Amino acid sequence: MILINGESKEYIEISDRGFQYGDGLFETIEVRGGHVVCLQRHLERLNSGCLRLHIPFPGAELISLEAEKLCRSMPSNRAVLKIIVTRGSGGRGYRPPDVIQATRVLSLHPYPDYPTNYSEQGIVARFCATRLGLNPALAGIKHLNRLEQVMARAEWTDSAIQEGLMLDINDHVIEGTMTNLFYIKNNNLYTAALKQSGVAGIMRSIIMMLSVEQGLPVVEHMFTSDQLLSADEVFVCNSVIGIWPIKQIATTHFSVGPVTQSIQIQLSEFTSRGINNEQ
Amino acid sequence: MILINGESKEYIEISDRGFQYGDGLFETIEVRGGHVVCLQRHLERLNSGCLRLHIPFPGAELISLEAEKLCRSMPSNRAVLKIIVTRGSGGRGYRPPDVIQATRVLSLHPYPDYPTNYSEQGIVARFCATRLGLNPALAGIKHLNRLEQVMARAEWTDSAIQEGLMLDINDHVIEGTMTNLFYIKNNNLYTAALKQSGVAGIMRSIIMMLSVEQGLPVVEHMFTSDQLLSADEVFVCNSVIGIWPIKQIATTHFSVGPVTQSIQIQLSEFTSRGINNEQ
Repeated sequence: MILINGESKEYIEISDRGFQYGDGLFETIEVRGGHVVCLQRHLERLNSGCLRLHIPFPGAELISLEAEKLCRSMPSNRAVLKIIVTRGSGGRGYRPPDVIQATRVLSLHPYPDYPTNYSEQGIVARFCATRLGLNPALAGIKHLNRLEQVMARAEWTDSAIQEGLMLDINDHVIEGTMTNLFYIKNNNLYTAALKQSGVAGIMRSIIMMLSVEQGLPVVEHMFTSDQLLSADEVFVCNSVIGIWPIKQIATTHFSVGPVTQSIQIQLSEFTSRGINNEQ
Repeated sequence: MILINGESKEYIEISDRGFQYGDGLFETIEVRGGHVVCLQRHLERLNSGCLRLHIPFPGAELISLEAEKLCRSMPSNRAVLKIIVTRGSGGRGYRPPDVIQATRVLSLHPYPDYPTNYSEQGIVARFCATRLGLNPALAGIKHLNRLEQVMARAEWTDSAIQEGLMLDINDHVIEGTMTNLFYIKNNNLYTAALKQSGVAGIMRSIIMMLSVEQGLPVVEHMFTSDQLLSADEVFVCNSVIGIWPIKQIATTHFSVGPVTQSIQIQLSEFTSRGINNEQ
């Protein structure tokens, strides 16, 4: 079942600016035991993305109600909720209509059947040839202009590789195609600063918050692939997979280390509280 | 009437990757006297964009036939044809499906009622605050990731201003929100090099070709707003408007000069031949 502006539909108007220009935002969220994990945080990010793009936010309460309705319609232990908000329909041309009626689309998808050993033993990653462009105006936002990620993800089909890491055009490592990236070096936690590219993920922000709370210094900065490859531990995260340690990037091997394992436990506890809407 | 994969429809599947990720391309073309102006050139660019994005091109013959069908269905002297090609439907996630069935959407729109004095007396332009990001992988392509243009076009509502000029993040002037930009200085024609951002327009390429044929040197380079403001003549172009001279940018005034007028005549003659599919 898909809900478009609250109605069960599977099609969107051709004139919708999401289709015409990628003029919108999205959220991808884990559904566990019928509950949407950390929904409020995702809705806050969606609201803040709407503010940056000047799209009227459809409202947290409305979306929450529709998300609940959708989850009830398809009871399964685990699923993925995708929420898309666009600037709605408008005439031909980039100029937004004077009165914007945002379109909201909520859809439920099967939870991907990732092997559990990805979380435990780690995954293999590669560096993508496709670079992230630099665009401060759109950096951090989870918008619908995602051709860079599509091009990067299309680079490999080898099922032994689970994620591709993307550099920006200045050779800074930024993130995975569908994940944020962290590394640990000398008991500091590092992740890319997202001022010019990248998506500021919800799991990324929770991990940073939990790490600071635990006394683990967190540094947002720009780093190269050499710096990454000399790390003690490396992991990627997103709202569907949680945390996957990286055990290999190209020919460099890493151990699944104690800092990553500790953050995995903290994140898991946090999101478990999150399904009860405490977070 | 809208043709989606050859059938008259007004809605697209939610799962279409054009909607999910802006994963596609488009063309916007003038229809004059029932004929699509310079259609073959637009289809060549569409084909070349498909090659760069690894989307199977639906075929020039098929799209031409559908364009003709659409034009017959809505006889009017002038109209705008929009062609969108996306990577088609696919599951959740950036990875393209193993077998890609491209979606093609052809739609006909009323010709905008621009006053004729825009072509004759020129227009007023402004500099946009929204910058173009740098992305060599996508530069030049007319893809569906158009949030930058949407944000730039949303900056003004004053109907006395007809176009906004966009700089990249390195302060180079690149193009208008919906147009390519040229300036003339000492009998040379200049336009932005589009290696890192911008759309390589069909009218832009024709203007460059015609100018070289006429012995007017054409230079593609990176230039600043100061260089632009010290030009002898300035104009913008696209496939719907043809050429609009710029008579004013911010507080700087320009004359509609002889070089621009000469290029206007040449372009007009060229596109008139183009409606008979000679070009």
